Amino acid sequence: MIAIATKADGSQIQDITKNAGVFSLEEIECVSELFEEFLNLGPEHCGYNFIVERDGGRVLGYACYGPRDLTDGVFDLYWIAVDPNARRNRVGYTLLTTSEQAVREMGGRMLIIETSGTPHYEPTRKFYFSMGYEIEATIKDFYVKGDDLMIFTKRL
Amino acid sequence: MIAIATKADGSQIQDITKNAGVFSLEEIECVSELFEEFLNLGPEHCGYNFIVERDGGRVLGYACYGPRDLTDGVFDLYWIAVDPNARRNRVGYTLLTTSEQAVREMGGRMLIIETSGTPHYEPTRKFYFSMGYEIEATIKDFYVKGDDLMIFTKRL
Repeated sequence: MIAIATKADGSQIQDITKNAGVFSLEEIECVSELFEEFLNLGPEHCGYNFIVERDGGRVLGYACYGPRDLTDGVFDLYWIAVDPNARRNRVGYTLLTTSEQAVREMGGRMLIIETSGTPHYEPTRKFYFSMGYEIEATIKDFYVKGDDLMIFTKRL
Repeated sequence: MIAIATKADGSQIQDITKNAGVFSLEEIECVSELFEEFLNLGPEHCGYNFIVERDGGRVLGYACYGPRDLTDGVFDLYWIAVDPNARRNRVGYTLLTTSEQAVREMGGRMLIIETSGTPHYEPTRKFYFSMGYEIEATIKDFYVKGDDLMIFTKRL
């Protein structure tokens, strides 16, 4: 069941990020920092919304989205990750669809997802394509040399 | 003379932003917020560096830059603005050149400048072109419908 994340989900969110197999240590720490801000300041104030898909007490995956400053109706999907053992269960589909619906309800008209162009992220990119996203822009050698930024967008 | 901005420059930085003629109220407030963070937390902690070009006690223009999270050596030029009465004096050139040099000294290899694609920003875009920047990516209808994001980049 999809729900707004709570403090109790924190350690499982961190584990899922670690176990996703694509995130660097810096990225794992970044998720923790945003989650702390979400808990301490609230989504309206910090700009980060965390949702989880839960099966009983078990977190199967999470997503984090929020409005892009200085735009009228553009939102970023900052993070989405699914427990490797829960893939094939449409957890990613449910999390992303729910994020899109929440963004629409907040007046959003576009969702942006930034990701890497390396082979490692090919399943991730395929997932975004399957969800109706297109690569609208790229920046070469963005993350490090040889690792391009791919900016996926979808009009909602 | 170029210098690191101080608290005393705050009101002139705000006036220059207002008088630049291109920034919205939300953008003017954003500059103030970043400047407060810069003063209160320091650039290492908040990630925003402010420099000014001064003539005696008068601030002629300012720039704000900082590292992009999760990248290795990519920096953003968040803001650059020059007092309309001080244009033609290469203030913009000096501020941007100094920012690039500072970014290089911090290990930066790329500077990104995001700006608008509207006719209003044509002088701004011409300035970036003249400084060796290229439009590497665009996102349609980013700021509002009809106002595209132009992502300028320069390898340093």
